[in-house]
Amino acid sequence: MVDPVKAVVILSGGLDSVTVLYWAQAQGYDVFALTFLYGQKAELEIKRAKEFTAKLGFTHKIIDLSALKEIYIGVTSLVDRNLDVTSEFTAPIIVPFRNGIFMSVAVAYADSIGAERIFYGAQGGDVANYPDCRREFYKAFEKAAQLGTEKTIEIDAPFGNVTKSTIISKAVELGVPLERTWSCYNQGPIHCGICESCLNRRRGFADAGVIDPTQYSG
Amino acid sequence: MVDPVKAVVILSGGLDSVTVLYWAQAQGYDVFALTFLYGQKAELEIKRAKEFTAKLGFTHKIIDLSALKEIYIGVTSLVDRNLDVTSEFTAPIIVPFRNGIFMSVAVAYADSIGAERIFYGAQGGDVANYPDCRREFYKAFEKAAQLGTEKTIEIDAPFGNVTKSTIISKAVELGVPLERTWSCYNQGPIHCGICESCLNRRRGFADAGVIDPTQYSG
Repeated sequence: MVDPVKAVVILSGGLDSVTVLYWAQAQGYDVFALTFLYGQKAELEIKRAKEFTAKLGFTHKIIDLSALKEIYIGVTSLVDRNLDVTSEFTAPIIVPFRNGIFMSVAVAYADSIGAERIFYGAQGGDVANYPDCRREFYKAFEKAAQLGTEKTIEIDAPFGNVTKSTIISKAVELGVPLERTWSCYNQGPIHCGICESCLNRRRGFADAGVIDPTQYSG
Repeated sequence: MVDPVKAVVILSGGLDSVTVLYWAQAQGYDVFALTFLYGQKAELEIKRAKEFTAKLGFTHKIIDLSALKEIYIGVTSLVDRNLDVTSEFTAPIIVPFRNGIFMSVAVAYADSIGAERIFYGAQGGDVANYPDCRREFYKAFEKAAQLGTEKTIEIDAPFGNVTKSTIISKAVELGVPLERTWSCYNQGPIHCGICESCLNRRRGFADAGVIDPTQYSG
């Protein structure tokens, strides 16, 4: 019997990355989850991320990069407590090169444990606004990763070219407990319902024709 | 008058990166230094890094990524207190994708402050053993950085194709207080003289025909 291929899944606790987690399991990968603290307001997503990996029995590392606040304060409302999270897509909700940082740590981890795949939850709807969600970006990063490690580590976003509603349908198929995923950019305890990420979530359920199990405060 | 171009310098406190710092100043860049804690034994290099930027009056961020220990324990002797630093080039002194991680944070920082250049201290002698010191690596990373930020950030290693002895000669020319740079992989208080990095340092001074001001214990 051949050992299953090891895969690192970058897991935020949000709907997209949790569905990637279940997808990777269904594909037969030996999954290692990696979650990052970077000073984000939405700490609840970390708690949820832990819930999922505990349930599935996966190795899960939480890496505290909250020192990145040094760089991100004054730059992004997802970190800076003095900036409001907006409902529109505007510069303050971009966290510059966040996926680049997460990927670089995932590459170091993959190299250390001998994983040949890295999966992350970029999705089709992010592509217009977030350059570090685009296939040309993560394939360029993959090349740098291979040159920098001399390993054949592949980076992929399994839902990189589908919409949120397709991911939701897929999640239902995979048995993901969607009500436990966390999308909101704010601190909770329940989804605000009005930030850009909550709006996408709501729209995704509506478009998929799936009843939205989420409790929203607004 | 045109504002000087902003440049982020990845600064370890070692001979190579400190010389890059002085070089960047001499080139007229508006320099922002970035130093990383990643659980390394050689904490003294951080102290020295601070000394140099204080002296030159540069903005300097120290980013605590010591949570990377989670990944690097058992993998590299530069971090793991249970592994000895060796004098030979062997796998345990490699820190997988370390430069990739440092660069990704430098890209986020450059994007946040509007810097157009990132410089780091890879040198010709590292190229054989450390894949993340090679030009093909950092140019691939540069491409990923540009795609991931939509900014024209350039990454360069000004001494990427010269030997340690050439850097030492250049450092003398630039007035770098070489006796304050720290190369040793161990904890100090003085250079061990026998780890791979100390051996390179000693050889570099000898080859450059410059009197080595370093105190070695072995």
